[in-house]
This record gives sequence, structure tokens and C-alpha cells, in this order.
Amino acid sequence: MAQAVPMVELWRGGMLESTHLGHAVICDERGEIVEAWGDPQAVIFPRSSCKMLQALPLIETGAAADVGLTDRQLALACASHEGAALHVNAVKGWLDTIGLAEPDLRCGSHEPYDRTERTHLIEAHEGPCQLHNNCSGKHAGFLTVNRHIKGGSEYVEVDHPLQRSIKDAFEEVTGEASPGYGIDGCSAPNFATSVHGLARAMARFAAAREDGDARERAMHRLTRAMATHPEMVAGEGRACTELMRAMGGKVAIKTGAEAVFVAIIPELKRGIALKVTDGGTRGSEGAIAALLVKLGVLDPDHPATLKRLGAVQKNWRGIETGAIRAAAGFP
Amino acid sequence: MAQAVPMVELWRGGMLESTHLGHAVICDERGEIVEAWGDPQAVIFPRSSCKMLQALPLIETGAAADVGLTDRQLALACASHEGAALHVNAVKGWLDTIGLAEPDLRCGSHEPYDRTERTHLIEAHEGPCQLHNNCSGKHAGFLTVNRHIKGGSEYVEVDHPLQRSIKDAFEEVTGEASPGYGIDGCSAPNFATSVHGLARAMARFAAAREDGDARERAMHRLTRAMATHPEMVAGEGRACTELMRAMGGKVAIKTGAEAVFVAIIPELKRGIALKVTDGGTRGSEGAIAALLVKLGVLDPDHPATLKRLGAVQKNWRGIETGAIRAAAGFP
Repeated sequence: MAQAVPMVELWRGGMLESTHLGHAVICDERGEIVEAWGDPQAVIFPRSSCKMLQALPLIETGAAADVGLTDRQLALACASHEGAALHVNAVKGWLDTIGLAEPDLRCGSHEPYDRTERTHLIEAHEGPCQLHNNCSGKHAGFLTVNRHIKGGSEYVEVDHPLQRSIKDAFEEVTGEASPGYGIDGCSAPNFATSVHGLARAMARFAAAREDGDARERAMHRLTRAMATHPEMVAGEGRACTELMRAMGGKVAIKTGAEAVFVAIIPELKRGIALKVTDGGTRGSEGAIAALLVKLGVLDPDHPATLKRLGAVQKNWRGIETGAIRAAAGFP
Repeated sequence: MAQAVPMVELWRGGMLESTHLGHAVICDERGEIVEAWGDPQAVIFPRSSCKMLQALPLIETGAAADVGLTDRQLALACASHEGAALHVNAVKGWLDTIGLAEPDLRCGSHEPYDRTERTHLIEAHEGPCQLHNNCSGKHAGFLTVNRHIKGGSEYVEVDHPLQRSIKDAFEEVTGEASPGYGIDGCSAPNFATSVHGLARAMARFAAAREDGDARERAMHRLTRAMATHPEMVAGEGRACTELMRAMGGKVAIKTGAEAVFVAIIPELKRGIALKVTDGGTRGSEGAIAALLVKLGVLDPDHPATLKRLGAVQKNWRGIETGAIRAAAGFP
């Protein structure tokens, strides 16, 4: 088993201060490895990076068509959003249209990442609700499928028909039997796979044809939804949103907790998956930027790129302190 | 050069999800290594973990005695505080007594980590000031020395007499010539040393006698100040404060950015220094807890310990998701 390799480094005062190691795979449309770093067989939890896999039943069951979901809503189903008013209102409106409401969610509540919304809640003396959970769009999707298949209310239990259908789709698209699952921050099961398996799934999405079979059509639509609605997938200031905008709607990317990142690149029919083994998001954001630059789909000098890789780090007084760089030999 | 070794792991669903690697040294009063993990010679920036070293001139110049600083103020000089009202008011009062004010600081402003103070600022429609900077106590100490030695106002410049005297003290106590410096978040120079050098310095503090030479007396007093005023060194909920309280005033510990942690253990005349190489604070907090437990000064079952090492992790709905554990073989 190959060791994780240095991917992203923090430099200060001309010296290396911190290093992020990881595993990464670029996969082609046949599911073969084009290039890999570290151990392609390392088993990881994709966490939120696999939300587009978890959204497949939403389209494939006909639930999305039944309620007329837009691409914007599908992007939200694949999102780890920052709980800005934009996202909260969109989830609330979506639940309204299917006759459900916030208490039907099973994602739990946490403070929104969005500063304006956080400030608003403080000024209004209100606490966050489940709509603010970064996964509430995914859960709105879950509830939409569940209503369609007439499932029980506890839709995040691993033996619920919804989660079983997600597992089936997950294993088919990754091309691997999942070795197990963990419970995610939002209470949904999160199925483990190898880095290669996750990259293979992303390449399947990348190569999916608009006029292909039902699964291909679902993958194609979710990719387009994410790539063309980057503001719904994360939010202002966040890596997914800023980097997708920088790529002009041609590429879909998604972060996951504990430093997972994936990319779907239709024009190349390539998929990327990576895991920084320490779980540090700084590392995974820098690493995905480096890989997207390597593949020629992201401008290395775009401000959104430089924010994650290459730009000088400044302190509270604006004084230069160091820089985040790709490690020598990566990628 | 030895590689960094696994120290702290995050487990989920019975599988290893993330791993923090690092270097650590336990040193005795002669400066010799008692036990080490990874590479004792790894060069690191101590960041805020060396604030007690940066405070030596405060006592040794006579500046602290001149203005009658209390142990509580000395603890604040060694702090990375959370900017609670407690800390902000203490720094403000200290500056008042030396005839200076917030604009004389050179640490810059950032939002307080303390939630109550953050909420207060939002409700008052105010922004943070330099008093909220986690390093403002250290800078109050810097200004106190600077006033005593009649130095120029730009006291964070590396060739300023204050920073030169800090460098001299730093190199004498670590027992090493510093290979260079970086600019810290608070704009002060931060001198590099090896993990061994930093552990040696902590052992020097641990063994320092109340009736020793001037340096020993300064080290003894700073250790006592930190260990007996844990609320000033960090704040409610934070690792330094909670773990020092759990050890009942017998041990001084201090975190530094990018996952450095040190401990001064007078009863054993031992010092500890560690660096988690990815810079993740979750790793350094777990690792220092594991080492303090190993040395018999921290209860492994104390809630403050379990919060960093061993306790089950729960999600937003209170459902068990995993656990943070010491890696096999560490320590």
C-alpha cells in the first residue's frame, strides 16, 4: 500500500511550516487510472463529496420530474451550502411545494456559515434551524424521493428504502462493493469506497450522455445543474462556488468534510477524487486546484485559484507572512 | 531524518477516516531527550507556544516589577486569549496603567473567538479592535518592556531592541541558534527552533527555581502565572484553559498555531514540545493530552481530556458518529 504523498505545503519565513499529505486519482471514462498519487486503493468516506451520487434516485425514481424540480434545485440537492438566505429560502420553498416543512428534515441544526445570516439570527435573537444545515438541500431531495416512494419518516436509517437505493447506485457507479458506512454529520449513512472508486464515479458522471440510459441522463443533468449553479452548491467565498465560477460552468466540483474533493470534467471525460489524510480542508482545496490547473481547466492565475494555491498569505495587519504552495512533485 | 509518526486518529463507522502525524520530544532538566517520536531535530515555528519565552525580557528587564504586574497579567502576556470581555478589559486596563492605549498596539484586529463578545459586537454594530487580537496580552507585555527600555514605537520589527533581546533569550533557553524567523499572525517575529530545542526550553522552565538566577526566577514566575491563571491563558472551552484546570495548577501548557503544543511540568522537571505536521489543532490537542496522560499528570477520564481524546463524536442530532483516538503505538 502506497503512502500518502505531500500535496500542499504552508511556507513561512522561507521555511516549510506545515504539510498536507494525501491520495489522489484521475480516472478516464473506462474507469481506468490515468494518473494517481499515494494509494488509489485507500478506503475513504467521501462525505459530502458524493452528494451527486446520493441524488441519483431523486431523478431516477421520477420524483424530480413529478414535482418539476429545476436545475437550481438539483444543484442544491448536491450542495454543502453556507445557509445564506438564498439557500434557506430555496429549501423552505422546495419543502412547501411537496407539502412538507422544516420539522420533517432529519439533518439537525447548526449555525449558518454565511456571515450575513449569522448576524441576522443574532440581531433577531433567533437560533438556527434545520434549514440552515449545510445538507438541508440534500435532505429536501431525500424527502422528495421519500414522498414519491411513500417511505417512512425516518429516511436516514441505513435500511430505509431510500438509503438502500442510494447504496445500490453508489456501488454501481463507483464499481465497488462498499466496505462499510459511517454516520455523517447530517445523520445520513455515508458509504465508504476507495479513492479510485470515487474517481471512477466522477469519470462516469463526466462521460454521461444527455441521451444515454436513465442513469447517464441523471448523471448528466446533475453535473450540468452543479456546474451552472455554483452559488447554490456552496456560497459566496467558498471554494466550490469560486472555483466553478472560475471554470465558467464547464466543470463540476464538490468538497467533502475531512478533506475530500472531487471533480467532474465533461470536456475531458475525466473524473478526479482526492483525500488529504489529515482531514484539513486547506490541503484538499489546494490539491484540487493544483489538479484542475494541471488538466488545463483552471487558470493558475485566477484569484479563486490563488486564494487556495500560490497566493501570499497576509496577517491581520496585511503583512506578508508566507504562502500556500503545491508540494514539489505534485501534481 | 525520522518521519513524522501517527499520533491522533479520527475513526468513523469502525474505519480510520483521518490521521494526524507529528514530532514530539519529552526533555529532562539537563536538556536531554527522555523520549521522542518522529524527528526531534525537525525545525518548526513555535508560534504562540513560545509566548513564555517572549515574556522573559518583561521580567528580566525589571519592567514588570516597575509597573507592579500581577501573576494574572503575566499569564495574559503568555496567552492566546479568546477576546472575551475578561481579556479585553484586562489588556485595556494594563495599557492604561502604562499610559498607552489600543492604537499603540501593533498586533492588528481580528474577531474575538469568544461567542458572547462576538455577539455583543454585532448587537452594538461595532467591529473588533486590536484588544480582541488573541495576542494583545503579549503585545501589552511588549509595550511594557518597550516603555521601560525607551524603544521606538515599531516594537515588532526584528531589529528592534525588544525583539533582539527576545531572540537572545530564546536561543539561550532552547540551547540552539535559531535558523531563521517568520512573521507571526500578530506581526511579531517568530524564531524557528527544533522540536528538541523547544522541549529543552520547556524543561528549563520546569526545573527553574524560585530562588535561582534572574532567568530562573523569571521562568519560575511565568510558569506559576500560567498554571494558576488558566482562564487568562486562553478562555472558556479552550484546550489550554480546560486542560490546565484539569491538572489543578501543577502544569503549564500552551498551544501555538499550526498545531504546536508545549507543556512545562515542574513536579517532574520535564518539558514537552510537539508539532503535528499538517497544522491541524485537533491533532495537537489530542497529542498533548495523550502525552500528559502518559506522564501521569492528566486524568485520562477527565471531561477535558475526553473532549480531545477518546470521547465519542456526536453530530448535530446527538447521534454517535465516531471517535478521536491516540494512534496505535503513540505515545
